[in-house]
Amino acid sequence: METREAIELVLKFMEQAEQRNEPVIRLRSPGQLQQVFEEAGVSLPMETPQKTHSNEEILRALQAVLDYSVHTQHPRFFNQNFAGPDPVAVVGDWFGAALNTTNATYEAAPVFTMMEHSLLQKLAATAGMKRAEGLFGAGGSLSNLLAMHLARHHKYPKANEEGLPSSVRLVAFTSEHAHYSLKKSAALMGLGYNNLRAVACDATGRMRPDALEEAILQAKQRGETPFFLNATAGTTVTAAFDPFVDLLPLAREHGLWFHVDGCYGASALFSEQHKHLMEGVEQADSLAWNLHKMMGITQQCSALLVAHPGLLRSCFATGAGYLFQPDKEHAELDSGDRHFQCARRVDVLKLWLTWKVRGDQGFTQRVNKAVANAKQFTAMLQEHEKQSFALALPPSFTNVCFWWLPPNLRGVSPDQWQPQDWETIHKLAPQIKRKMQEHGTAMLGFQSLNNLPNFFRMICINSVVDHQDLRKVLDLIECYGYEAIS
Amino acid sequence: METREAIELVLKFMEQAEQRNEPVIRLRSPGQLQQVFEEAGVSLPMETPQKTHSNEEILRALQAVLDYSVHTQHPRFFNQNFAGPDPVAVVGDWFGAALNTTNATYEAAPVFTMMEHSLLQKLAATAGMKRAEGLFGAGGSLSNLLAMHLARHHKYPKANEEGLPSSVRLVAFTSEHAHYSLKKSAALMGLGYNNLRAVACDATGRMRPDALEEAILQAKQRGETPFFLNATAGTTVTAAFDPFVDLLPLAREHGLWFHVDGCYGASALFSEQHKHLMEGVEQADSLAWNLHKMMGITQQCSALLVAHPGLLRSCFATGAGYLFQPDKEHAELDSGDRHFQCARRVDVLKLWLTWKVRGDQGFTQRVNKAVANAKQFTAMLQEHEKQSFALALPPSFTNVCFWWLPPNLRGVSPDQWQPQDWETIHKLAPQIKRKMQEHGTAMLGFQSLNNLPNFFRMICINSVVDHQDLRKVLDLIECYGYEAIS
Repeated sequence: METREAIELVLKFMEQAEQRNEPVIRLRSPGQLQQVFEEAGVSLPMETPQKTHSNEEILRALQAVLDYSVHTQHPRFFNQNFAGPDPVAVVGDWFGAALNTTNATYEAAPVFTMMEHSLLQKLAATAGMKRAEGLFGAGGSLSNLLAMHLARHHKYPKANEEGLPSSVRLVAFTSEHAHYSLKKSAALMGLGYNNLRAVACDATGRMRPDALEEAILQAKQRGETPFFLNATAGTTVTAAFDPFVDLLPLAREHGLWFHVDGCYGASALFSEQHKHLMEGVEQADSLAWNLHKMMGITQQCSALLVAHPGLLRSCFATGAGYLFQPDKEHAELDSGDRHFQCARRVDVLKLWLTWKVRGDQGFTQRVNKAVANAKQFTAMLQEHEKQSFALALPPSFTNVCFWWLPPNLRGVSPDQWQPQDWETIHKLAPQIKRKMQEHGTAMLGFQSLNNLPNFFRMICINSVVDHQDLRKVLDLIECYGYEAIS
Repeated sequence: METREAIELVLKFMEQAEQRNEPVIRLRSPGQLQQVFEEAGVSLPMETPQKTHSNEEILRALQAVLDYSVHTQHPRFFNQNFAGPDPVAVVGDWFGAALNTTNATYEAAPVFTMMEHSLLQKLAATAGMKRAEGLFGAGGSLSNLLAMHLARHHKYPKANEEGLPSSVRLVAFTSEHAHYSLKKSAALMGLGYNNLRAVACDATGRMRPDALEEAILQAKQRGETPFFLNATAGTTVTAAFDPFVDLLPLAREHGLWFHVDGCYGASALFSEQHKHLMEGVEQADSLAWNLHKMMGITQQCSALLVAHPGLLRSCFATGAGYLFQPDKEHAELDSGDRHFQCARRVDVLKLWLTWKVRGDQGFTQRVNKAVANAKQFTAMLQEHEKQSFALALPPSFTNVCFWWLPPNLRGVSPDQWQPQDWETIHKLAPQIKRKMQEHGTAMLGFQSLNNLPNFFRMICINSVVDHQDLRKVLDLIECYGYEAIS
C-alpha cells in the first residue's frame, strides 16, 4: 500500500465533507456492503487464510470505506451527541497515531505528559475547581466508573485492600434520566443496579432535590450507606442540567461524594452566556468532561477532574516496577500510577492543538453557536407555516425534542391523543428516519421517553450547520412524513 | 492552520523515522521543553486566556512535537511491549479519525460493525475458540476487568441486580508475575486486593499448578468462593507463558472461570512455530488480546473474546432507548449493548486494513522475526567476546533480561555477589539508561524482580530491527557501562 496515495483519498474526503449535495450516508444492508467490497477486490469479511492485496485493491477498498461510512461532518448530521471533528483535531490525532506512544510516563511521552498536566489544570480552572487533579481516559463511561470507585475509596480507604465489611450496603443516587453508564458502573463495582437509586425528575428533566432527599432518608432508614451522588450536566435525550446548587447541600449533609457527569454539558463552561448552567460545579468532588462531544475533538477525549489531591494516586497506585521505576529520569511526572488504565493513547495532543489554534474565543463561539442554533430551530418549529411540528419536551441547551404531526393531529394537545394516534405518531419517526437514510439526506435520532411516543431528538452541535440546514431538516421531515402517511 | 502543510510534516517524519542516525529521543527536562515551544512561538502550557496562533507558529510547534517526542519507530527503540506502528495501521487509524464515528451501532458505523464482527470471528478461530463472541475495547486493563466481571456475572447472574449476598466472599487467582491490572480490577470490582491471590511461579516465571491447587484448597477451607483464574500469556517482564493445559483441569474441577491475559503473548497464535505456547487457550472462557503490542497496530487495539454466546449481552445490556432503538434499521447488529463502553473509537479499521495488506503470512513473519531476534540477541549476549553480559532470568519468547557486568564480576555467579556488588549492579542500569537517553542512541527498559538487582529488559518486537541494531545496543551498553564505573 502506498501511504501517500491512501492519504490523498482521506484528505480529499475531508476537503469535500461539508458539501451539501453529497449524501450523509449511502445506506446499504450488510449483504450489499459485502458486495461493494467484493467489487473493489477486497472482501469485507476476513478470509481463511487471509491473502495479501495489491495497492490498487486496497485503495479501492479505502475509497469504499469513505463512501459507505456515515459522514458525521455533513451539515445535516445530527444523529449523535458528537458530530464531525474539527479538522485541527484530526491533524492532532494523526500526529499522535504516527508517534504511537503511551501517555503513562514522562519517559515515553515527555511532550504529552506536559500537555496533559497543563490541559487538566486549564479545564479545572475553567470549572472553578481549585486544587483539582485529573486524568484523560478512554471515554465517559469509564470516567463515571472511576469517579464512583474514587468515592468508595474516599469513604472506605481499606476497601481496595479488603473489600467492604459485609455489614455495609452502599447506595448511590442519580436521576432517572442519567446516562446508563452509572447503572453499568454500579453493577461492575459490585453494588448492583438496585443500589443505584433513580431519583425522579421535574418536567424539564432535572433531578428533583426533594425526591433526592427522600431517597437518601429512605436508604438511611433501611440501614444502607449513601456514598455517591451523580448529577448530570446535559442528559442524553433532553440535555437537561440537574440543579447542582440545590443538590450540593444534600450531598454535604449526608456525606455523599458529589460527582458531575458533564460528559456532554460541561462544555457550557466555555461560554460566559451559558456557564450559569454549571453553577455549583466548582464545589464538585469530581467532574467527567468529554471534549469529543460538543468541542469537536475526535473520539475519544475524556477528562476526569478530581478535587482531592493525592486521591488518584492513593486509589490506583500499584507501583509496577517495570514501568514506574523510581530511579529513572523524571519519574515523579509519570501519570500511569494514578490511573486505572495502563498504556493510554495520546488523547491530549489533539485537544492541545485545537485549543492553541482556536483559542478560548473559538471554544466560546462553538458553544454559543450550538445553543443559538437550537433556539433558532425551536423557533422554526413553533412558527412553522403548517403547524406540522410540536415540541415533545421543553427544549434545553442544544437539544430539541419534537414530533412531526399528521394533519389531523395538528393543534391537538398530546393529552387529547387517542391510543391509535399514539401508535401512529410512535411509528412515524422510524419511518421518516428510514427515508432520510435511504435518500442520504439527513440523520437525526429518535426515541421514546416518559411514555411519550417516539420523537426526534435534534442535537445542534454540528459546527458547520447553518440556518438553511436547520430549515432543510424540517422540510425533509415534512416531505417524508406525508409520504409515510399517504 | 493549513491541514496539508501540517500533514506534510508528519508524512516526512514517518518516511524518515527508521533512519539510524536520527536520535530515538532528544531528552529534555520539563523546563527545557517549555523553552523549545516558547521559541516556536506557542507556549507548551495552556494560557489564560488562551490566544489563537498563526499557521507558521502552529507548524513550528508541530515540528517540535515530532522532534521532542520518543521515536518508537526507531530501530533502537526497545523500551515498551509495543514499538513503532506498521505504517499501514497508521493509515487505517487516520481514516478512522477523519470519519469520527462510534463503533457502537450499525446505524453510525455500518462498515466498521461488519469489520468488528468478522475480525472477532477471525481472532477466535485463530485461537481455536469455538462459539466465541467478543468486543474491541479501550485497552488490556479494561479487557481483564471486564473478563473478571463476566466471570462473576456467570457464577452469580443476580449480582448485577442485587450485588452479592453478604455471606459470599469471592476470591480470584493469578500468578505473582501477572499484570497489575488484575489487582486494580479486584479493587474496582469490590473484591479487594487481598482476595486476588498471587500464586507462586517457577524459575521461568510460569504459574505453578501445585501452588494454584493449594491456594484454591486453602480458600475453600476458609469458606471463600473461588471464581476466577487469570493465566498470563507473556508476562510483562519475562514474557513467560503460564502452563494453560496444567491449570485448566484445576479451573474446571473447582468451578473457576479460566481467563487468559494474552494482551502481549496471544499473538504467538499467528505463528505455527510458536503457537504451542498458547496450547489450551481454545478451552478458555475468555481471552484478552492486544493487537497494538506485538502486531504493530497503533494504540489501542484490544480484543476480548468470550466463549459464552449471549453472556456479553446478558451482562451489559441496559437497552438505552436513545441509542438502541429496536425499531430502527439493522438494530440487531448493534454492538453497544454488549459492552461496558458507550461511544467507542473505531479501532477495527486499522487492524482490518493491516491484515488485508499483510495477510496471514505477514502476521506470521512478524511474530517469527521477533522471536528469532530474541534468540539472536541471547546468543550475542552469551557469546560476547568480553563476557560483559549475563542473563538475569531465563529468556522467553521475545524478552531477554540481562545485566551488564563490571569487569570484576564477569564470570562470577550472582549467588556469589556481595551486598556491595548487588548495589553496584543495581545502580548501573539506571546510569546506563540515562546515558542512552542523553545521547538519544537507544531506549530499553530496566527493573528489579525476584530481589534481583536492576536488569535490562530487551523486548524484540520492533519490526524494523536488524542484527546490527541488536549488536549496537550491546556496544552502547558496554560503552556507557565503562563510562559509569570510571
